[in-house]
Amino acid sequence: METSRPLDALNNARNKRVIVELKNGKQFIGNLVAFDIHINTVLDNAEERENGETKRQLGKLFIRGDTIIFIAPQD
Amino acid sequence: METSRPLDALNNARNKRVIVELKNGKQFIGNLVAFDIHINTVLDNAEERENGETKRQLGKLFIRGDTIIFIAPQD
Amino acid sequence: METSRPLDALNNARNKRVIVELKNGKQFIGNLVAFDIHINTVLDNAEERENGETKRQLGKLFIRGDTIIFIAPQD
Amino acid sequence: METSRPLDALNNARNKRVIVELKNGKQFIGNLVAFDIHINTVLDNAEERENGETKRQLGKLFIRGDTIIFIAPQD
Amino acid sequence: METSRPLDALNNARNKRVIVELKNGKQFIGNLVAFDIHINTVLDNAEERENGETKRQLGKLFIRGDTIIFIAPQD
Amino acid sequence: METSRPLDALNNARNKRVIVELKNGKQFIGNLVAFDIHINTVLDNAEERENGETKRQLGKLFIRGDTIIFIAPQD
Amino acid sequence: METSRPLDALNNARNKRVIVELKNGKQFIGNLVAFDIHINTVLDNAEERENGETKRQLGKLFIRGDTIIFIAPQD
Repeated sequence: METSRPLDALNNARNKRVIVELKNGKQFIGNLVAFDIHINTVLDNAEERENGETKRQLGKLFIRGDTIIFIAPQD
Repeated sequence: METSRPLDALNNARNKRVIVELKNGKQFIGNLVAFDIHINTVLDNAEERENGETKRQLGKLFIRGDTIIFIAPQD
Repeated sequence: METSRPLDALNNARNKRVIVELKNGKQFIGNLVAFDIHINTVLDNAEERENGETKRQLGKLFIRGDTIIFIAPQD
Repeated sequence: METSRPLDALNNARNKRVIVELKNGKQFIGNLVAFDIHINTVLDNAEERENGETKRQLGKLFIRGDTIIFIAPQD
Repeated sequence: METSRPLDALNNARNKRVIVELKNGKQFIGNLVAFDIHINTVLDNAEERENGETKRQLGKLFIRGDTIIFIAPQD
Repeated sequence: METSRPLDALNNARNKRVIVELKNGKQFIGNLVAFDIHINTVLDNAEERENGETKRQLGKLFIRGDTIIFIAPQD
Repeated sequence: METSRPLDALNNARNKRVIVELKNGKQFIGNLVAFDIHINTVLDNAEERENGETKRQLGKLFIRGDTIIFIAPQD
């Protein structure tokens, strides 16, 4: 019932829609395809959002982990 | 009675409500679910606060450790 | 059908056209020739873009991985 | 009589009141409970100070080491 | 025909004229003499450029790798 | 007669008065008590200086190495 | 005739006058006494320069490597 390591939470979010917020203030939404211990992250069907509106469609997207602030699964 | 290593303090805060303050000035409050040696942190029932007011509800939240300034358990 | 590690997504994009967005806001488009675990990346037929317009032609280009925000394959 | 390694100085300050100054200019004062080689630091009875005045009481506080500029024991 | 690792591209550029662009916006042009895995780079007959004009002649130049955005061989 | 490694220069400055200049522009002067390979540094009888004037007395001071630009022994 | 590794170039500059330019824009000139793989560098007879003029004499100077942009030997 309890997740004991941070990456377990990401593992549970695989193939689900997640919000990824970056250090430069950008926000991406997409399906979580893959991640690693550096939090390098791959999204599919990704789009960039700004103030709740879609700014551009990006399809598949590799994000370098060190630019990420948080990843929030959307239920 | 004494905590000798920093991560012991986080361990004692598991499943408790904590404030997480980030380098970009953002503040999140949630239940501490998990953390690792990089201070990657997972909160549950997380919300973003600004000037003491709830800005948005985020549910489960994975925060990359290198964006964190401090974690303060709320008693 | 599923990519399980982030670098697999980059591997699938080899020899294809990708957009590389940097932390300083610059955007490069080119053919993905090579990358490593630091996300050091080599593009061929690279050009710098600004607001959707080509700013300069750079030919072959070695980009240091820690300056990269994301790499998006163009289908 | 002489301290030969930097962490010895922190060790001597355990359970004593210390000032911790952060890279973002914030200043915390509290009892030094724990620290590690990354200078991750735990304070107890911590308070945030601004221009010599208490801004908020934080109780127990885990500070990520890479945000710290200096730690000064108060005699 | 294909370069499979990023440093191969730099290896092919040895003794050739390259543009090195830094995170602070500066641009150096010189003959690539040496580089290592940190992308620490040595140029010979180096000059600093600004808006396409030579700003100063620097001769031999050791550049710390973590300040580099990209290296582009000039054909 | 010659110092061959950088830390030898710091070793020769032990128990001597040094200027430590930080990335945020602050300047500390004190007796060099200890340092390590990260350049974490402990000063005794430390004071903060601004424009050549003492701003505050800090006594013993642990400075995190990654905040330091340079250490200059005062002869 | 050819230098194959970047640190060889620094090794050839030992005991010679070098310009060291820092990320904060400061420029130091001095005799290169020592350096290591982190590019931690010790200068002797060092002076700080601004717009080609000497701003202050610093004598012996230990510079933390991660603050350095480039080191240029002066012939």
